Amino acid sequence: MAAKQNIEESSEFTPKFDENGLIPAIAQDAKTGQVLMTAYMNRAALDVTIQTGFATYFSRSRQKLWKKGEESGHLQKVEQILVDCDQDCLVLKVTVDAGQCHVGYQSCFYRALKTGSDKELKFIAQKVYDPGKVYKK
Amino acid sequence: MAAKQNIEESSEFTPKFDENGLIPAIAQDAKTGQVLMTAYMNRAALDVTIQTGFATYFSRSRQKLWKKGEESGHLQKVEQILVDCDQDCLVLKVTVDAGQCHVGYQSCFYRALKTGSDKELKFIAQKVYDPGKVYKK
Repeated sequence: MAAKQNIEESSEFTPKFDENGLIPAIAQDAKTGQVLMTAYMNRAALDVTIQTGFATYFSRSRQKLWKKGEESGHLQKVEQILVDCDQDCLVLKVTVDAGQCHVGYQSCFYRALKTGSDKELKFIAQKVYDPGKVYKK
Repeated sequence: MAAKQNIEESSEFTPKFDENGLIPAIAQDAKTGQVLMTAYMNRAALDVTIQTGFATYFSRSRQKLWKKGEESGHLQKVEQILVDCDQDCLVLKVTVDAGQCHVGYQSCFYRALKTGSDKELKFIAQKVYDPGKVYKK
């Protein structure tokens, strides 16, 4: 278990990409602590993020690099990149403007399971912009 | 895109499990907002979590349900389960005691990439317990 311990205790950044070459990244508002979204990065997306200081992910649906906000303008300025114990997940502390989710909310996590239910959600946020005006069909 | 819009705007909880039957779940301290860890749930783990009120994940390495804290005692009391726009990721707002990470830290995210580096990490937290005393070999 020397290798495992080394990954956990080391100050060497050795992110572990999965069988598809991807690592999950959680974007968290650096000021409020709100979890905004999760997405995936490949090595190139991570490198671009480090080099530019703006969050860039790998879009699995489009199979290409995706600078968050390139269309909507809602960029994510990366303040800090955290990695977990086994180095297979990242947290990006980001500075953002209002409206990070393409549905119109600040966070993608705008619904919560109702207490006592396993099927029904309640909306826990209000939309902060009209996505129809931002995203062209 | 009616189906996609329905998933995003609906109050029906329809979590999307991946090709391995898993959905990623982020445990976030309900009080401080700190991201503690990420893990995966299968349908059974999610059901047990909802039914018991304590976070239960699916261990990919052991291929079985894993009640967080069953060995260490560091349980996660689930206050709220959030789901994202496309319903393929969960955030669990949890109440926890000290020492959630098996390495000895409160959070698994105890290291951050050093500014200006793509290789070197700095430790941003102190250990809060001695894992050697908790986990038996």
